[in-house]
Amino acid sequence: MLEHEVKIPAMPETGYQIRIGADILGSLWPEIESSFGKLNKFIVTDENLVSAGHLEKLTGQRNIPTYVIKPAGETSKHINTVISIIEAMEKVKLGRDTLILALGGGTVGDIAGFAAAIFKRGVPVIQIPTTTVSQADSAVGGKTGVDSSISKNAFGAFWHPAAVYIDVATLVTLDERQFRAGLVESVKHAIIADARYFDFLETNLDSILQRKTDVLETIAYKNCRIKGEVVEVDPLEKNQRRMLNYGHTIGHAVEAASGFELLHGEAVAIGIIAAGMIEIEMGLSQPQRLERIRRILEKLEVPVKLPGNLAENQLIEIIKHDKKAVDKWPRFVLVSDIGRVYSQNGQFAVEVSRELVEKILKQL
Amino acid sequence: MLEHEVKIPAMPETGYQIRIGADILGSLWPEIESSFGKLNKFIVTDENLVSAGHLEKLTGQRNIPTYVIKPAGETSKHINTVISIIEAMEKVKLGRDTLILALGGGTVGDIAGFAAAIFKRGVPVIQIPTTTVSQADSAVGGKTGVDSSISKNAFGAFWHPAAVYIDVATLVTLDERQFRAGLVESVKHAIIADARYFDFLETNLDSILQRKTDVLETIAYKNCRIKGEVVEVDPLEKNQRRMLNYGHTIGHAVEAASGFELLHGEAVAIGIIAAGMIEIEMGLSQPQRLERIRRILEKLEVPVKLPGNLAENQLIEIIKHDKKAVDKWPRFVLVSDIGRVYSQNGQFAVEVSRELVEKILKQL
Repeated sequence: MLEHEVKIPAMPETGYQIRIGADILGSLWPEIESSFGKLNKFIVTDENLVSAGHLEKLTGQRNIPTYVIKPAGETSKHINTVISIIEAMEKVKLGRDTLILALGGGTVGDIAGFAAAIFKRGVPVIQIPTTTVSQADSAVGGKTGVDSSISKNAFGAFWHPAAVYIDVATLVTLDERQFRAGLVESVKHAIIADARYFDFLETNLDSILQRKTDVLETIAYKNCRIKGEVVEVDPLEKNQRRMLNYGHTIGHAVEAASGFELLHGEAVAIGIIAAGMIEIEMGLSQPQRLERIRRILEKLEVPVKLPGNLAENQLIEIIKHDKKAVDKWPRFVLVSDIGRVYSQNGQFAVEVSRELVEKILKQL
Repeated sequence: MLEHEVKIPAMPETGYQIRIGADILGSLWPEIESSFGKLNKFIVTDENLVSAGHLEKLTGQRNIPTYVIKPAGETSKHINTVISIIEAMEKVKLGRDTLILALGGGTVGDIAGFAAAIFKRGVPVIQIPTTTVSQADSAVGGKTGVDSSISKNAFGAFWHPAAVYIDVATLVTLDERQFRAGLVESVKHAIIADARYFDFLETNLDSILQRKTDVLETIAYKNCRIKGEVVEVDPLEKNQRRMLNYGHTIGHAVEAASGFELLHGEAVAIGIIAAGMIEIEMGLSQPQRLERIRRILEKLEVPVKLPGNLAENQLIEIIKHDKKAVDKWPRFVLVSDIGRVYSQNGQFAVEVSRELVEKILKQL
């Protein structure tokens, strides 16, 4: 037997800029050209962005090859859409010297980010998120994923963007339900990482709901900073990054059990309440903390109770099959205080018994 | 405008083992279990490997979920095969704690390696190459790629294997034409990196062609060491790794122009002769060197002349669209001596005029 070891060399630290402003979409192109001028450009967006006029704002009079996802939304987050995008790039003779621009919400970001990860072994992508949820969450961090015909996020890659541009003015035209549900990720960020940010959200909620762009800029910045700092420590989600999963274990189960009738943020709101109830039961919290959180979520008009048609045993079954489950039961992210994640032996996802979760679901 | 920079942390050096032996397939499983025991296993192979008995040798009496690619060969190297594999994994409820084993030639390695790169954002893969070309080349280095309906390797990722196991006894049953064509990559390795290895190939060619396992072990080891060392310096092919492309720019064009009637190694043999002729024209070589190379290729019974039905202008058109072309003309890898790549200003791919390439193709 002969042996040889192949070393995979260390990779130096790199990074990317997030730029946040109001009404910046129309002036981005020259900036993109000055940073990425050598690359051909290809835009991925969806029909909502086209009808809102955002695509035109971005490109101006320029003629940039573009793939418009139809229909907009989750049903298009499928491997077949990625294949169509890559074949569209090939048809206009684009090669590995191409920069993909993802203009849209989380679905567009996921689809375009994954297409960038696998086109000719990877090309750069710029994320230009246009929804509360994608500006707060999915545009930063490099996770991409699309569904197979069997399950969600069956295909995916870690693929960091080359830059992120956030124009909070794109939120002004966002559908009210989407706008509010997306803010739940901001509440989550405040709960896990920043008590003063939580105070800010409480104090400024009216201005946020009126979509005043100065507060929207502030929360976009806070969200990116919190998410960015967590991702920096643990980009491949070995431990710390799991804290971003706060409210998500039960939230994902509620979202799936609702047949995706509930929006992601709406389901996570219920998951955040459930996490708060678990914390009280485990002696990590007093009821007042949960009441503060509940008040902010109620003001967002997102659900804080389980819809009556969801059976607890169905939720338990889904939780048992959580993708992070080990021996058919996942760990949970909890906080010991607003702004501070509870850890056990250095682990940011901790054991919570199935019995306790069943009890909470009955009360929820 | 607010700004925040997200750092992508440095990644430490890692590595993987290549183990080479004769008739080791039957004893690999316990070794794999001892290194990767916590992971579920899934095998990707093709119908040729099943009929040769290699799959059974690897698994023994164990019942391991397996995807058998049909038909074996290039036509299955398509994104649709990857989708079928991932859906097969989902159907048997495999998740991210899965290890994929790629048992087969270059096509199996590419398909399974790419499936591993994108299943649930990436799972580990072990490469068990079973052909001369995959043992010499594709199993090491982490390049994976599959075709779209429009072009070759439209989809792909850099995805390093977790380990490589080479059983040279699998070569004993390999089809004679495949066996000989795959040895061209060994000749290429010797030309670019190791004059003593070139001498070894000249001296031992009869034993190699008789498939004596001791010499096959030696050349597998030499190939992995040469390829591994190049890949270590430049895993993402920014410069040095391009030397592995020796003979490949014209080789790829010949392969494509033949409608893939020629095997990859056969086309590369013609490309190696062309590179040698370019070297003579550019004053980098005397004719004797090319004669040595030609003799070894002739003894392998691979083509050393352009097939009569290939038009030079068609080849030039394909070369202009080479995926590494800049301004419609690629750079070429040349050697200044057997074992030493010619570099200009630190670049391992150098300028060769279109006129010179046209002249060489006319003579070839």
